[in-house]
Amino acid sequence: MKKIINNPDNVVEEMLNGMTASHPQYLTRLEGFDSVIRTNKKADKVALVSGGGSGHEPSHGGYVGRGMLDAAVAGPVFTSPTPDQVYEAIKAVDAGKGVLLVIKNYSGDVMNFEMAAEMAAADGIDVEKVITNDDVAVENSTWTIGRRGIAGTILVHKIAGAKAESGAVLADVKRIAEKVIANERSMGMALSPCTVPAAGKPSFTLAENEIEIGMGIHGEPGTHREAIRTADEITQQLVDKILAEKIYNSGDEVAVLINGLGATPLMELYVVSNKVQAVLQEKGLHMVKTYVGNYMTSLEMAGYSVTLLKLDDELKELLLAPADTPAFVQY
Amino acid sequence: MKKIINNPDNVVEEMLNGMTASHPQYLTRLEGFDSVIRTNKKADKVALVSGGGSGHEPSHGGYVGRGMLDAAVAGPVFTSPTPDQVYEAIKAVDAGKGVLLVIKNYSGDVMNFEMAAEMAAADGIDVEKVITNDDVAVENSTWTIGRRGIAGTILVHKIAGAKAESGAVLADVKRIAEKVIANERSMGMALSPCTVPAAGKPSFTLAENEIEIGMGIHGEPGTHREAIRTADEITQQLVDKILAEKIYNSGDEVAVLINGLGATPLMELYVVSNKVQAVLQEKGLHMVKTYVGNYMTSLEMAGYSVTLLKLDDELKELLLAPADTPAFVQY
Repeated sequence: MKKIINNPDNVVEEMLNGMTASHPQYLTRLEGFDSVIRTNKKADKVALVSGGGSGHEPSHGGYVGRGMLDAAVAGPVFTSPTPDQVYEAIKAVDAGKGVLLVIKNYSGDVMNFEMAAEMAAADGIDVEKVITNDDVAVENSTWTIGRRGIAGTILVHKIAGAKAESGAVLADVKRIAEKVIANERSMGMALSPCTVPAAGKPSFTLAENEIEIGMGIHGEPGTHREAIRTADEITQQLVDKILAEKIYNSGDEVAVLINGLGATPLMELYVVSNKVQAVLQEKGLHMVKTYVGNYMTSLEMAGYSVTLLKLDDELKELLLAPADTPAFVQY
Repeated sequence: MKKIINNPDNVVEEMLNGMTASHPQYLTRLEGFDSVIRTNKKADKVALVSGGGSGHEPSHGGYVGRGMLDAAVAGPVFTSPTPDQVYEAIKAVDAGKGVLLVIKNYSGDVMNFEMAAEMAAADGIDVEKVITNDDVAVENSTWTIGRRGIAGTILVHKIAGAKAESGAVLADVKRIAEKVIANERSMGMALSPCTVPAAGKPSFTLAENEIEIGMGIHGEPGTHREAIRTADEITQQLVDKILAEKIYNSGDEVAVLINGLGATPLMELYVVSNKVQAVLQEKGLHMVKTYVGNYMTSLEMAGYSVTLLKLDDELKELLLAPADTPAFVQY
């Protein structure tokens, strides 16, 4: 294992300290806990809390700031944070208008965030939750009942975050988050595995000419393995699987997220985006906004996912609203 | 070679088309040439043009937009663009107030950009140039007389771009760019090599426990190879080499750029930043702003560089000024 770390046991702690030391204008460490919270939190708004296992950076700490999250809870690498960690984050950011939890659909995260919600509710805090499940690859998976939540989660942060920033009530912020979840789908692939620091070796292997279609962001199995083909052929396959959901129709406005898994050169992501734009244009879709980069990673895994979000006027306005966080800034 | 591409011969062309198709609000392809130019160029300002070999994305096309570059010229992977490509970009963005070329110090780039400047000057265009040479690792290198220009180039784009946006004349924009170059130093290391698509195999190899200190962004040799150590030890070594330049003194305000080379997990870059902040704080420096991410990459190379920029009031104001480009947005 070749990594720029000090000790596998301290990597999350040192990362969180590095994040707050690097971006004090955005992030503050929640004293004694593995969370970062918004430095200049706007009072009197619904708070958004997300998080999960570490190793997906900039998810989720990089999205804490104006117009997105109020807190991000960081578990050990690829492991859910405990209920008490989530509970403390909820308490820290609740401003009396309630808290929305944005949870990726993995059994551990769902269980622990729900337990935290119950603890907070017992304190009189108004807590609601949404569960992202944008990955169309598989219906159930190693750590999931139902579909997995992957890069589409960022668009929930963005749009629900803008709604909360506008002063909306909790029920309305939750409604918007659920609308994003209903309207978005993702599909990914991997070229190479990643190594969890504490494990010290890759969690699986792929042959020199082999790729995995539909692989999860923790290396969970996808739909199948196949010999590597051209970027256009692979991308067509991923987009076809998304379009087979039959929720995107000619004339629709959409947002597109081309997400790198950590070790994919940006050059390759743009080659992918070039094909995605062509396929969607031929389908009669109008691309309102395209994001290309490392938004939801899997340590140093190579590969990418494509996310499509169907927009209506409400979602479009919130998507294009300003945001100011360490990893997502938009005018 | 396992890459998400179609054909090594088309990778730059498809990347540029992917960039403009993804970000039409920022970028427009210069018809018939390998450049992207600013979509809504502000008239009546000094224009900034940069570029070089491809494979360093988001450098430089990702920095075209308000407050940074007006054009970025993309050569083949790790190969300088030809003089005519640079010449056409200069002509396309000159608004009658002159053009500043920001060139990384590699012999090919310097020669070709200078030749383009002469061609443009013959047309009556006022052209000036600055050459970045922030890398303290080696004095001369495979493709360089003098020190190499690496990630510090982004801070020249940012600060000189803000100056140009403010309406300053060409001589003043050049003066600011030169002040940045005089006040910044970088030092990097690599864990693993990268593969140029047309070559099909890595340009060098490192043993499983071996790293290279001071490696260049095209895989040029650094100062030495050594067995991998902890993140803190490696980082201390890099920062010590920068501080040995003796231009950073207790009480100084500085900007810090922790740059990933393409395949380094953001988690590791934050572990590095945690150490950098501690070392600089102990030295008595005040960190005004820290950037952490993939700013100047080497395809899928793993590793990082640290850049330090000493600020005065003028540089600080321009660094913190707004910018809006595909890869660098700042309020």
